[in-house]
Amino acid sequence: MTNDEKAVRAVIENWARAVESGDRKGILANHAEEMLMFDFPDVVRGIKAYDKTWDFFFDETKGPIRYTLRELLVTAGDQVAFATCLVHCDGTSAGALDFRLTTGLKKEAGAWTIVHEHHSVPTIEERFIGPGSK
Amino acid sequence: MTNDEKAVRAVIENWARAVESGDRKGILANHAEEMLMFDFPDVVRGIKAYDKTWDFFFDETKGPIRYTLRELLVTAGDQVAFATCLVHCDGTSAGALDFRLTTGLKKEAGAWTIVHEHHSVPTIEERFIGPGSK
Repeated sequence: MTNDEKAVRAVIENWARAVESGDRKGILANHAEEMLMFDFPDVVRGIKAYDKTWDFFFDETKGPIRYTLRELLVTAGDQVAFATCLVHCDGTSAGALDFRLTTGLKKEAGAWTIVHEHHSVPTIEERFIGPGSK
Repeated sequence: MTNDEKAVRAVIENWARAVESGDRKGILANHAEEMLMFDFPDVVRGIKAYDKTWDFFFDETKGPIRYTLRELLVTAGDQVAFATCLVHCDGTSAGALDFRLTTGLKKEAGAWTIVHEHHSVPTIEERFIGPGSK
C-alpha cells in the first residue's frame, strides 16, 4: 500500500469512527467547503447542507451507532483518490441497514480532503430489478 | 481544463453515447476487467457481470434511449480520477428516470480506464427521508 493509499484509508476510517461516536466536528473534518454528496434521497451541496444531514441521522437514535466499513478499497494517485466500501449501519431511527459508499478525495495543501460522497441504499423498486438481481 | 480532465470527460461522454445507441461494445470499452459497480439494486463485480446488467437495460425498450449527462464534474490527477454527474434516462422498460452516477478511473498503460461505477436512484423509503429532503 502506498503512503497516499494509507492516508486516504485513515481519513475514511476516522470519519466512520466519528460517526459512531457522534462526533460532529470529526465527521466534518477533512471535508471540502464545496463538497457534493449524493445522499440516499437527495443531492446535497456544500459543507453546511452536509452537516445538516447528520441532524436527521442522529435524531431519535435507538442505541449505540454502528457504522462498520466492509471491503474498503482505495485507489489513490498523488493528487486524486477515490474509495469504495459497503457500510453496515445500526442504531438510527431507520433500523439496521446496509448501503454502498463511494468517496472522492483531492489532496489540498498536502492533506487528503473529501470532496464527494455517494451514499446509496439498494433500490426496492420493482422496475429496476432485473432477473440477475436478488 | 487539464488534458487528463478532458480525456476522462471524453471516456464518460463516449460511454453515454454508446448507451444511447445500444452499442454494447462501446459500453464495455475503457472498462477494467476487475471493475466494481454499485448498480441500482446490486453489487456487480467484473466486466462479464457488468455486461449482463445491460441485457436487462435493453430488454423491452419503449423507444429511443435517452441517456443525458448533467453537471458532469471531473476531478483528475495524472493517474487517478473520479467524476460525478446526474443522468436523465428514458426509453427503457423502467420509464423516465433521473439518477446519480459516480465513476472512478485509473490510467492504465496510458489510457483512462473505468474501474468503478456507482449508479443510484434516490430512495423512496420513508425511513431515510429527513425533514430537509424533498
